Amino acid sequence: MTPLALTIGDPAGVGPELACAAWALSGTANLPHFFVMGSKRVLEKAARRRGLHVKVRAITDPGQAAAVFDTALPVLDLGDIEYTPGQPTDEGAALALKALETATALVREGRAAALVTGPVAKSRLARVGFTQPGQTEFVADACGVPHDRAVMMLAGPSLRVVPVTVHVALHAVPGLLTADLIETRSRIAAAALVCDYGIAAPRLAVAGLNPHAGEDGRMGHEDGAVVAPAVAALQAAGIDARGPLPADTMFHAAARETYDVAICMYHDQALIPIKALDFDEGVNVTLGLPIVRTSPDHGTAFAIAGTGQARPGATLAALRMAGECAARRALA
Amino acid sequence: MTPLALTIGDPAGVGPELACAAWALSGTANLPHFFVMGSKRVLEKAARRRGLHVKVRAITDPGQAAAVFDTALPVLDLGDIEYTPGQPTDEGAALALKALETATALVREGRAAALVTGPVAKSRLARVGFTQPGQTEFVADACGVPHDRAVMMLAGPSLRVVPVTVHVALHAVPGLLTADLIETRSRIAAAALVCDYGIAAPRLAVAGLNPHAGEDGRMGHEDGAVVAPAVAALQAAGIDARGPLPADTMFHAAARETYDVAICMYHDQALIPIKALDFDEGVNVTLGLPIVRTSPDHGTAFAIAGTGQARPGATLAALRMAGECAARRALA
Repeated sequence: MTPLALTIGDPAGVGPELACAAWALSGTANLPHFFVMGSKRVLEKAARRRGLHVKVRAITDPGQAAAVFDTALPVLDLGDIEYTPGQPTDEGAALALKALETATALVREGRAAALVTGPVAKSRLARVGFTQPGQTEFVADACGVPHDRAVMMLAGPSLRVVPVTVHVALHAVPGLLTADLIETRSRIAAAALVCDYGIAAPRLAVAGLNPHAGEDGRMGHEDGAVVAPAVAALQAAGIDARGPLPADTMFHAAARETYDVAICMYHDQALIPIKALDFDEGVNVTLGLPIVRTSPDHGTAFAIAGTGQARPGATLAALRMAGECAARRALA
Repeated sequence: MTPLALTIGDPAGVGPELACAAWALSGTANLPHFFVMGSKRVLEKAARRRGLHVKVRAITDPGQAAAVFDTALPVLDLGDIEYTPGQPTDEGAALALKALETATALVREGRAAALVTGPVAKSRLARVGFTQPGQTEFVADACGVPHDRAVMMLAGPSLRVVPVTVHVALHAVPGLLTADLIETRSRIAAAALVCDYGIAAPRLAVAGLNPHAGEDGRMGHEDGAVVAPAVAALQAAGIDARGPLPADTMFHAAARETYDVAICMYHDQALIPIKALDFDEGVNVTLGLPIVRTSPDHGTAFAIAGTGQARPGATLAALRMAGECAARRALA
């Protein structure tokens, strides 16, 4: 199979060491072949500092990754930089940006099977010419997909969640929610679960906005006025959707058995349960794109970069999920 | 020890059968002595329907419970009524209300060690003269405690949470939150953890309102303007409080090790994680009262009443916690 492209992320963060750790575990973790888009020297230093015996080998084309992967971590080398773990620099941000741009282009061209992005510092990226709010929007732009149709899903072993609104103040959430927004994101999620996850008839559990889903309007009108019509529209379109459901009783083990994805109304409603249950294995997936893109669901973790404490579970999960989704698309 | 008083709850709900199931498990579950405030006939029928061999014996004074408890479930009998599981009636609600009133009085008088309330249907209670929004407010009134100083805490094996605002629409939450409200509820929670839970210096983790606790004001101003001053005031009072913390990363296993109670800004922020983690063992505790009051954190579950499906874990946990808290107060 065509290899996955893993971007190095900010060199001062945990991205480089986790790329090395993932490769070191690739045999036991049953990972698909991947190459790192980044810097050979940065990876070598990160591996050494973490005490990993990882051989890093530069390749000049993704097609060479397969032959290299069993004995060394393949890297498409963008050059060396000076860096210190935990101390982000503009030079490091520029490398991270170059890696993201190049890897996205390779995946768009079909020369890499999927894009797995390492963690970056957005505020630092903005200093070196990055104009999008985050990597998700960058990738959407690169693919010509409007931001509002690139849908974030968090997926772990216990749960998949889609927050309908994301990085906005809580007071703004009720005003931003519309039946159309909920329906559009839900449809994109449902379609992706079919294509990328092999779930023939995905079951959607749609959370209410208010406590107890508003209790028949006694606590907020939005569940009846906004969420319920969205669910009805999804059902009318033949999608197996239920809701609005009281959010507090959606996430225990027996409840989770009844759906494939929880459609949540705001950031913490989605991220509290998945991080409570799947903290070390959460994958951030962008749905609705012509390419497969995943990311470990954590940040640069500058505070622990270089200390060896960063756990590779989410990187392994992001690589594995990207490989599985790409394989399903290749078969379709 | 003085026995606990367990109210029967709505007879058409799962209260009666769970009282019988708890007694049947009392040996293995290491429960304190308790008696049911309710109806001997209702309990006998509920036990039979659930296939439990439970002998129910009427007592006329809580002081008789200890002598009876090892061989029979003691009940202070308020009389027989006709009832059908799953079909609430005004007669049943009247029994539930009488049980609540009588049991509260006995605990207030010191004749029972603590109050454990079974599940009731609030809308049905309102038809028979109940004027409070719920049992918590009823008990607060009976104790002469203002509603805003009776603080709900949910406690399970994994987590304790206090929602600062509770049954209100989400859009109303930002307007209701004040530094004073957060501080007051946190102080009551901290004091209760000392007295009732034996935690000498309780550690409070205070959640932010907005995603990522507002990210320095980029997503909402409340975390800086309201939550942070409350945390500062708590710290100034010598309470070990931290915050505002990003709510989504507060509830994984390693994070939970760092605090004794999570102070949450709204209903679902508190109830999503505890129900995700401790669904069958959640206890609703009312802090700030002169008496100990707990309750299993579930409703009447009319839909499964009488089917034998209702699990007794939360009732066992509520009885156990009430016994432990009462014992600590008795020693103080």
